[in-house]
Amino acid sequence: MDIHTDHPRRKSLASRQKIVDAQAAGMLADSALIAHGRGEAFDYLLGEKTIDSARQSQREAVNRLFSAQEPVISMNGNSTILAGKNAVRLAALTGSKLEVNIFYRTEKRMNLLLEKMKFMKDEVMASRPPKRFTVVEWKQLVSQVEILGAHQDSLIPGLEGPRARCCSGGIFQSDVILVPLEDGDRCQALISMSKQVIVVDLNPLSRTSRFATVTIVDEVARAFSTMTDMAVEGKGDPDMDWDNQSVLESALNAIGNSAHRISELDD
Amino acid sequence: MDIHTDHPRRKSLASRQKIVDAQAAGMLADSALIAHGRGEAFDYLLGEKTIDSARQSQREAVNRLFSAQEPVISMNGNSTILAGKNAVRLAALTGSKLEVNIFYRTEKRMNLLLEKMKFMKDEVMASRPPKRFTVVEWKQLVSQVEILGAHQDSLIPGLEGPRARCCSGGIFQSDVILVPLEDGDRCQALISMSKQVIVVDLNPLSRTSRFATVTIVDEVARAFSTMTDMAVEGKGDPDMDWDNQSVLESALNAIGNSAHRISELDD
Repeated sequence: MDIHTDHPRRKSLASRQKIVDAQAAGMLADSALIAHGRGEAFDYLLGEKTIDSARQSQREAVNRLFSAQEPVISMNGNSTILAGKNAVRLAALTGSKLEVNIFYRTEKRMNLLLEKMKFMKDEVMASRPPKRFTVVEWKQLVSQVEILGAHQDSLIPGLEGPRARCCSGGIFQSDVILVPLEDGDRCQALISMSKQVIVVDLNPLSRTSRFATVTIVDEVARAFSTMTDMAVEGKGDPDMDWDNQSVLESALNAIGNSAHRISELDD
Repeated sequence: MDIHTDHPRRKSLASRQKIVDAQAAGMLADSALIAHGRGEAFDYLLGEKTIDSARQSQREAVNRLFSAQEPVISMNGNSTILAGKNAVRLAALTGSKLEVNIFYRTEKRMNLLLEKMKFMKDEVMASRPPKRFTVVEWKQLVSQVEILGAHQDSLIPGLEGPRARCCSGGIFQSDVILVPLEDGDRCQALISMSKQVIVVDLNPLSRTSRFATVTIVDEVARAFSTMTDMAVEGKGDPDMDWDNQSVLESALNAIGNSAHRISELDD
């Protein structure tokens, strides 16, 4: 698809095309397109930019991944397509494992996504290292990122059916888990396992957003890009008094203000 | 799909399933799922109900269809799937033609949608008539509804490519056109042809919403259901001082207030 480089919504349209292409390639469930559309609408109301409170959540997320004993980044179809490479970078920088874990699991889709993720890992290994890393150091660091998901041998308590399944060495034993675009029931179940659950969700009213330990109300590609940059800058201390409620309120206010910004109608 | 009858978002989930099924059946473009998802998000913020200003737009829309010389209801894939039967009823009651007209036209999808629409027309003809109509009158009225779209022989000036195409006896010569889920460029082009353009769009900030003569900010199935009921009640006079801007402001305020309704977070 041709998108003019000066189109004001170029990034959004490019992301949409990636999702459409990945769906045509059999990597995504139908529901992935609908979920993407929902996200587009919320992002539109957020002005398609990372708001300040989301940036704070991102810094907190990075700090928590750095401080964790067993950090895991859980990737579904949409986040793999839109943010896979930066997820590999973030995992490398913070010492996290990656686990591909999808809601509507089929072997075909799992294999395609695992292949895609491994391909991206190779690309990141061969790419220019972030500042402060030599080529050799970077290669070494990225090569250590484990990509799990093929062999699910554990169940998340409290969930029924295939979406309970996960890897014992990954999500199951994690203490801090970053799950972009999670479903509400699973978010609750992970919280019930006493994990710190960091989510990326453009809807600040969703159950996922409300139950999470740290909610990042931002588009997933922007969120991973910014978190990767932050991780390159180094680690910080987690905020033990983290006020997630205020993050949600900020996002809601941004959306509400955007909707009330009637002057746009005079464009 | 099983959806509990007491699920608070049952209608929304049922509509989503219809769209997923229709896409699997080859009736919809990929973009249809994304568009549906965007609509879901805005509808969520509207509380998944018809707000007062949308009801006013619906009444105005019905009045304008009744008063038109050549009223046409243009149906795309999503609106056919979600509101096809009520579109037939509304067309029958107001003497409008139906034209199936899709953005990403393929012969296969057009034929499937035309078949679906004709099937729905037969269903409506056989269904219980609305109050004040006898079975014979209703059959007669519905049988007269023309379903156009197979033979596109006109072009909308100012548009390029396949989306310029329409039927000379339908959209092209219409004076009042109801177009659910229209694209912004085409909405503008239709306005430039001096038509009254009535749109159904859940995004009050979209170009379509802003350019239309009458904007109905509502979910398409609800909008057609309500307009059908209104048309059964009878005709009224169009409001020649129709203030579409105030409709958009009301919808934006509803969305903004919903976003600010932080108390929901305590659910």
